[in-house]
Amino acid sequence: MVLKVYGPHFASPKRALVTLIEKGVPFETIPVDLMKGEHKQPAYLALQPFGTVPAVVDGDYKIFESRAVMRYVAEKYRSQGPDLLGKTVEDRGQVEQWLDVEATTFHPPLLNLTLHIMFASVMGFPSDEKLIKESEEKLAAVLDVYEAQLSKSKYLAGDFVSLADLAHLPFTDYLVGPIGKAYMIKDRKHVSAWWDDISSRPAWKETIEKYSFPA
Amino acid sequence: MVLKVYGPHFASPKRALVTLIEKGVPFETIPVDLMKGEHKQPAYLALQPFGTVPAVVDGDYKIFESRAVMRYVAEKYRSQGPDLLGKTVEDRGQVEQWLDVEATTFHPPLLNLTLHIMFASVMGFPSDEKLIKESEEKLAAVLDVYEAQLSKSKYLAGDFVSLADLAHLPFTDYLVGPIGKAYMIKDRKHVSAWWDDISSRPAWKETIEKYSFPA
Repeated sequence: MVLKVYGPHFASPKRALVTLIEKGVPFETIPVDLMKGEHKQPAYLALQPFGTVPAVVDGDYKIFESRAVMRYVAEKYRSQGPDLLGKTVEDRGQVEQWLDVEATTFHPPLLNLTLHIMFASVMGFPSDEKLIKESEEKLAAVLDVYEAQLSKSKYLAGDFVSLADLAHLPFTDYLVGPIGKAYMIKDRKHVSAWWDDISSRPAWKETIEKYSFPA
Repeated sequence: MVLKVYGPHFASPKRALVTLIEKGVPFETIPVDLMKGEHKQPAYLALQPFGTVPAVVDGDYKIFESRAVMRYVAEKYRSQGPDLLGKTVEDRGQVEQWLDVEATTFHPPLLNLTLHIMFASVMGFPSDEKLIKESEEKLAAVLDVYEAQLSKSKYLAGDFVSLADLAHLPFTDYLVGPIGKAYMIKDRKHVSAWWDDISSRPAWKETIEKYSFPA
């Protein structure tokens, strides 16, 4: 029974998908219809009690939180594919550091941009222009730190691609695409080179080709 | 040269401190005076480019983000003290899941309560009553999920104490103390028993006795 990923068409679950594809792990996907509120029904809440995507079921084992799924997959299949956790305790520390930066510092302002630029009208709430401006300023300050870091090493955690880089893919893909703020990446030389590198990895291309957001 | 923790008197660095004490790792602490803006000076920014605490220096190695430091210490000193990462890949997956829940779901509303109830007047911004009310409602919903989880296992990730539990200590200590909302913990039977258990661990008692917030 192969591993199942719930909610593949949304952004956060793509952190799990790209990791599974990088590691060559077979999986299947199960759509979750957020528009119909399927994520708030008992069957789904039994897998993910907060009612968000993704949820993952691996045989008898259940796990949620996209970045935890990434770590679980990278650890369980450590011996195959790229070592996305780093080879030493010190390297893994840097991977964990930048994974946490993504989760707690990079993602929140980008999520605000996503919700208020891409989804406000679809979800029926007014787009908050003040919040959009503040969020872009916060994200710009974060990207300035990334620019300095990526002038010192090719990837965030060092000279090896890791979960820390891959975790940025789904929402940065929104930033340079439907959010319409590609300049935030392109205007920073090292961030731009990093983005070109990670977003052209075959595993990411496969992820967005197979699981694009439903039109 | 022992490991150095910068900013021990603030809450987030206490995630690192309690982990070091649990694991019996020697360390020293270096105060950072946030009121004087020391965290925005070049010397500190060289350790932590976002200008937040903690920063950690372990010989030639530098690491920041409190939950990344916890993982680094627990992994480096895996063979001594309690195994705070779980014994199997599956257990570690659950530890990672609840660590990410703490970082991305539990912490943000509690940080709002901390800033707007404990620090607004000290930091000179108006306390936002609407945000306080919304944040309490969000945190209550999160704690309802915790109550269900902790009715099934003694600790968040299973029947073993882990980093996922310890990560909650510093800001929940604010919640039941200076924030004045202990009822949010006490009114939930299993959450309350869990809190009594983890907050009475000798490592946590030592942390708050030695590194209390400056009066």
